Amino acid sequence: MPPSAIDFRAAQLAYFRGQSHRLFTAPEVGGWIAECEQQQVERETREAVNVREWRRAYDRATKLSPELVEEFERTTSIAWDAWVRARKASDFAAFKPHLAKLLELSLQMAEAWGYAEKPYDALLEGYEPGARTVDLQKVFDALRGQSVGLLSRIERKPRSELGGIFPIAAQQVFNKEVAQRIGFDFNAGRIDAAAHPFCTGLGPQDCRLTTRYDEKDFTDSLYSVLHECGHGLYDQGLPQEDHGTPMGSAVSLGIHESQSRLWENHVGRSREFWEYWLPVARKYFPQLAGKSGEELYAHVNQVRPSFIRVESDEVTYDLHIILRFELEQKLLHGEIAVEDVPSVWNSTFKELFGLDVPDDAHGCLQDIHWSHGSFGYFPTYTLGNLNASQLFHRIETEQPTLRRSIAAGEYGALLASLREKIHRHGHRYLPPQLMEKATGEPTRADYHAKYLEKKFVKGR
Amino acid sequence: MPPSAIDFRAAQLAYFRGQSHRLFTAPEVGGWIAECEQQQVERETREAVNVREWRRAYDRATKLSPELVEEFERTTSIAWDAWVRARKASDFAAFKPHLAKLLELSLQMAEAWGYAEKPYDALLEGYEPGARTVDLQKVFDALRGQSVGLLSRIERKPRSELGGIFPIAAQQVFNKEVAQRIGFDFNAGRIDAAAHPFCTGLGPQDCRLTTRYDEKDFTDSLYSVLHECGHGLYDQGLPQEDHGTPMGSAVSLGIHESQSRLWENHVGRSREFWEYWLPVARKYFPQLAGKSGEELYAHVNQVRPSFIRVESDEVTYDLHIILRFELEQKLLHGEIAVEDVPSVWNSTFKELFGLDVPDDAHGCLQDIHWSHGSFGYFPTYTLGNLNASQLFHRIETEQPTLRRSIAAGEYGALLASLREKIHRHGHRYLPPQLMEKATGEPTRADYHAKYLEKKFVKGR
Repeated sequence: MPPSAIDFRAAQLAYFRGQSHRLFTAPEVGGWIAECEQQQVERETREAVNVREWRRAYDRATKLSPELVEEFERTTSIAWDAWVRARKASDFAAFKPHLAKLLELSLQMAEAWGYAEKPYDALLEGYEPGARTVDLQKVFDALRGQSVGLLSRIERKPRSELGGIFPIAAQQVFNKEVAQRIGFDFNAGRIDAAAHPFCTGLGPQDCRLTTRYDEKDFTDSLYSVLHECGHGLYDQGLPQEDHGTPMGSAVSLGIHESQSRLWENHVGRSREFWEYWLPVARKYFPQLAGKSGEELYAHVNQVRPSFIRVESDEVTYDLHIILRFELEQKLLHGEIAVEDVPSVWNSTFKELFGLDVPDDAHGCLQDIHWSHGSFGYFPTYTLGNLNASQLFHRIETEQPTLRRSIAAGEYGALLASLREKIHRHGHRYLPPQLMEKATGEPTRADYHAKYLEKKFVKGR
Repeated sequence: MPPSAIDFRAAQLAYFRGQSHRLFTAPEVGGWIAECEQQQVERETREAVNVREWRRAYDRATKLSPELVEEFERTTSIAWDAWVRARKASDFAAFKPHLAKLLELSLQMAEAWGYAEKPYDALLEGYEPGARTVDLQKVFDALRGQSVGLLSRIERKPRSELGGIFPIAAQQVFNKEVAQRIGFDFNAGRIDAAAHPFCTGLGPQDCRLTTRYDEKDFTDSLYSVLHECGHGLYDQGLPQEDHGTPMGSAVSLGIHESQSRLWENHVGRSREFWEYWLPVARKYFPQLAGKSGEELYAHVNQVRPSFIRVESDEVTYDLHIILRFELEQKLLHGEIAVEDVPSVWNSTFKELFGLDVPDDAHGCLQDIHWSHGSFGYFPTYTLGNLNASQLFHRIETEQPTLRRSIAAGEYGALLASLREKIHRHGHRYLPPQLMEKATGEPTRADYHAKYLEKKFVKGR
């Protein structure tokens, strides 16, 4: 964004956020919800789900004053711009006052919302309804030990490179073929290029994915597409007739991320995936003629501790999240000061990864999330990984031919199962109940740990 | 846009357009304007200008019912999608019903707005306040003869090509250097890539330009940048403190286009421009080492009748506009039927350009404008050319060193003059008065005709 334009944009967004907050929290809206609650409707019907969720959202929203909402919005707009510049210059001091202000406002909001145990609970609730810090802590503690142990047992191999140039135009056609085959509906969506891959919905039947291209490695854009397609398939599988209501919306970030990670990793980074797709890829990229499926599989499953979360492999990914989860709590609960963030980040990073962080751009300034004031967001990434492993394990139990289907490029039964277990329910159940209905138990860490162990230590 | 998403988008836009129309045309708004009109304020002060223009907009808007506004909006959303597909398939029949509907609605709006002589006047007024069809007709008739005559006297040369590849990254840096030097403020704007070059404002201090890149010819993106920068300099020169009011807005499309065409053609396609920029361009594109300034000048000033307006040269450009201006009038005034559009287009094209249109994609389906229901828009392109020639001629008279400054890469005095004559006034004067204040006379055709004659026949 042009520097001179920031202030007006911040004022504009603050105005819109404030007005929309005033409209939604008006007493008559509460009256409408109360009136709906008087009706006798069966539980878990779309009417019951919508009223239940509107009530939850209304009660949460009315605890914040429009002024606080406006100030938060204005602060994040300005903080985001400051973060872009601070990261570029690797200058934490330039971002520090914005981070401090956002933490202060987040704490104010947490106090206004209220919480059972810790302020962090109140923030988490905004991204993962029903999740509690204390439960996550237990799961993450177990995962931390497992991941660190796993990492120490994985053999380090030299970095593999594919060689040659992969023209962007060919990558686009190949990616589209993959997306179409796994079930993404291009009549109701598109894939474009952007600096950062994402998935967003512009309306019903209008799901927009982005990816970015590396001419030296076609798998970079491919796995972004598979990841975003996982999000997109969820959005396209929501009940379209309920668009704009809770019933037609995704239930949480931890469930959303389970869909993206399942397609990206459990499907896309499997040996079976390349059985089908390597011959296809060779048509687009002739330099793959000499590569075996096993080589491709090894290439896309390299494990190597590195500084940047979004470039990390499956084994180290959750360690990146655990670092942030612990640091956020310490910050919010006043156990460390804002100026300690770089040193705490760097020492924890050394402990988890065994690496010395070279500068803050490769450390505590790397992620956009804090500049948005999104404290409590990061844990949903790891919840996504856990849910993905648990779901895939369950579906594999139910569908013994699953891996053979993937090897044949057939994804219909897998997608149908995800539609049935997750997508079609929208907001019908809270995430823990949804996971229980889908897999027979709430989210656990050990399916994921076993998956990683089997894949990266046992090699299968 | 994904095909399945069109209907919702159309409904959404119709809703917003209808609501915004209802808000603006509410009786109390009329009351506020009337109250302002009671105040004694000096003419042409910002207060007087705003009240005058709000009155004009209010009186025009209140003549349309919200339902008509909604229907028009919904129809254009659907027509635009149909046009994209029809053009791709070169299938006029697929676009015909949408065009017929838009014409019918446009006529309804023209009747509601009212007009002195012809329905076309009422549409023109929306793009060029104060312009009358009958006046334009005289100017365009003169121009038609001049351009056809000119074309017949210009020597046809073989198509020139620069040769070699011009990497997009180098084009971007070069274009940015040019834009910066002519005065575009990158603190308050940016240039990005898009399928179609355009200039838009996302807010005060936030001017967004786009261009597109041809790796075989760097001048393609360069002239798009110069053109859009001309628009951008106007926007950046408007009184920023008046943003959001008529005083802070551009006065008409014909004035806006004069700014883009002045920088693109009078500055950018001059010999003097390349005196300064060829040595700079050689640093980015080594293959230009063997090219002379005269060769570049000839390359960017090739004249050749062709089918597509946006690819046309300065001599044939206005003939493309005249064709559309005449055809639109015939359609609106019922002199031809919608199904006659292709045949009338093709026969007029033959008459003006001496060429047989191969298909409707290269003929009557080429432009987006009719799918937006923008009848009366095209003539403002030619008004832009006429105004640009008249303005440049006037400034050259006032600044005898103008061409020497361009040869030295110095644009400060030229930009200052445009700021002074045009930009700073916003909506203070209507276009004819603005041109009179800026150049001593209202828009005339002969400055442009003389400019073309001198440049393309006399070769200087």
